[in-house]
Amino acid sequence: MVVMPEVPLAMGENPDAEVLAEGIRSGDRRAMGRAITLIESRRPDHQYQALELLDMLLPDTGNAVRIGVSGAPGVGKSTFIEAVGVGLTAAGHRVAVLAVDPSSSRSGGSILGDKTRMNDLSRDPAAFIRPSPSGGTLGGVARRTREAMLVCEAAGFDVIIVETVGVGQSETAVADMVDTSLLLIAPGGGDELQGIKRGIVETADIVFVNKTDGDLASQAKAVAAEYAAALRLLRPATKSWVPRIQTCSALENTGIGNVWRTIEAHRRALRTSGALGRRREAQARHWMWNEISESLIASLREEPATAALIPELERDVSAGRTTPGAAAKRLLGAFRAVGDGGR
Amino acid sequence: MVVMPEVPLAMGENPDAEVLAEGIRSGDRRAMGRAITLIESRRPDHQYQALELLDMLLPDTGNAVRIGVSGAPGVGKSTFIEAVGVGLTAAGHRVAVLAVDPSSSRSGGSILGDKTRMNDLSRDPAAFIRPSPSGGTLGGVARRTREAMLVCEAAGFDVIIVETVGVGQSETAVADMVDTSLLLIAPGGGDELQGIKRGIVETADIVFVNKTDGDLASQAKAVAAEYAAALRLLRPATKSWVPRIQTCSALENTGIGNVWRTIEAHRRALRTSGALGRRREAQARHWMWNEISESLIASLREEPATAALIPELERDVSAGRTTPGAAAKRLLGAFRAVGDGGR
Repeated sequence: MVVMPEVPLAMGENPDAEVLAEGIRSGDRRAMGRAITLIESRRPDHQYQALELLDMLLPDTGNAVRIGVSGAPGVGKSTFIEAVGVGLTAAGHRVAVLAVDPSSSRSGGSILGDKTRMNDLSRDPAAFIRPSPSGGTLGGVARRTREAMLVCEAAGFDVIIVETVGVGQSETAVADMVDTSLLLIAPGGGDELQGIKRGIVETADIVFVNKTDGDLASQAKAVAAEYAAALRLLRPATKSWVPRIQTCSALENTGIGNVWRTIEAHRRALRTSGALGRRREAQARHWMWNEISESLIASLREEPATAALIPELERDVSAGRTTPGAAAKRLLGAFRAVGDGGR
Repeated sequence: MVVMPEVPLAMGENPDAEVLAEGIRSGDRRAMGRAITLIESRRPDHQYQALELLDMLLPDTGNAVRIGVSGAPGVGKSTFIEAVGVGLTAAGHRVAVLAVDPSSSRSGGSILGDKTRMNDLSRDPAAFIRPSPSGGTLGGVARRTREAMLVCEAAGFDVIIVETVGVGQSETAVADMVDTSLLLIAPGGGDELQGIKRGIVETADIVFVNKTDGDLASQAKAVAAEYAAALRLLRPATKSWVPRIQTCSALENTGIGNVWRTIEAHRRALRTSGALGRRREAQARHWMWNEISESLIASLREEPATAALIPELERDVSAGRTTPGAAAKRLLGAFRAVGDGGR
């Protein structure tokens, strides 16, 4: 089966983690789908199973090239990812496409990881596409995507692409789980390339100027050159890598082979300097602390005594009626009072 | 008295918060110094007094122009701040200079907010200079500086300058407590202006190219023009403001009057669009959540049961022996077990 539907877990069903792990290691897509559904579930028993499962799979992870792709709506992300993905599977790779989209909802679905926008790739037996986990905080969505990435790696996928729209801090969250961050931009009507927003350039290792086809081609190349100069000026990068800007047209399939070559060049540079290993270690530690913070804050929001206080305190703090420090102390006091009541 | 020494609090001494508040409102520097020492103290009774005090002062705060100044060591921050400060006091303003430097220690002192580097300003009766709170996390240092800023505002200082070296995330922390963020850079030996590092351009509303004097003047102007073009390209700012780059020489006192005029222009733009109020409200809420996270994580690090676990878990996570999620759960489990043991 090459289309990967969401596989719901029936109430009270607790798939044996060991069986699931074996299925995943053999590349069974149903097993992958069930595992990712477990990971995304908010049920405590599922969360426990997910932890168990990931613990078993951990030794089988880490062997993929992890790539982030950010870009504003309209720059052509789906077409780009499909073009790159199809080229990679043709070359013998197994490609997973995941997404971080905190705005997605269960009913609405996300425009990211949308199979209908990547028809060829979604029918490709060597590809696996999964939409963003739905809703919740960016931190929660990103963590579940990162765990889904581990499942894909254990299943033998050697290229993982994580897509994001780049709203808010999502491109930073994605940069924090991948080895190479790509930014996709496209010519707009004027000087400014569509898709550049404050901070998004911050994380990009490689910038691809898409839609350099037809009438906009020469304009796109000119602006790409300006951006290249700007990036080199403003981003004295790590010693191993200077951010690069390149042009392509996903639609006309030009410059797409170059995408992988450039990603490989980045990876070689990171490996050579030892930065790849260090980066992944730092990312893992950072995720641990993210998780700790998220869990603690989630507890605050869930615990009735403290949840009731939050909107009131935020209003008081915004209006300057109370200091942030006093508000924090009040909330934490209520939180600890709950803990001391015994459970 | 115009030199502001650190005023130590004797053991067991609990200054009456109301008396202190009155002293501050009347502009008494000793009172200001005692208040800030209270704020910086780690003693629980002092922390309680500090909260009480800030609560009393809150209605008297918010009336200053809050400016952040970031720049790498060597760009001339002290000379720049002094030149700007002296100009402002001459024009009738009262200027406080604070600093965020997590690397500072009680014995070593910080190079920031160092009065010996701002001789004229430190002797100016209309100025108040205080070194960075020492050590601890960036979050802790930044919070204490923000609270010191409130004390200065309650004391009638209408311009607050918060200085930072811009290492790590400190320029972001400072941007999160001020209205206008300045970045100071200076010509180095080659193409790259000294002082630009990854991410630091992210927060700057205005960039000043210092040391445009002598031989380096024309080179500095040329590079400044390139940076201006780059910033405009890469930072499609809020509708209210496009980041500006300007040249100056703090040493020769050229372009310094322009610094304040540009800050005022930024402020006008923010006020006109309503962004200033919104920014401050969002900052206040953000500080509340920062404080909550910091406190919770501090508890984790202090509680013996959990503190002992942390280095081990970080090692396991870095080495890929355990997932970040499992490590977080283990740590939080130990933390909650402590809470349930009753206090």
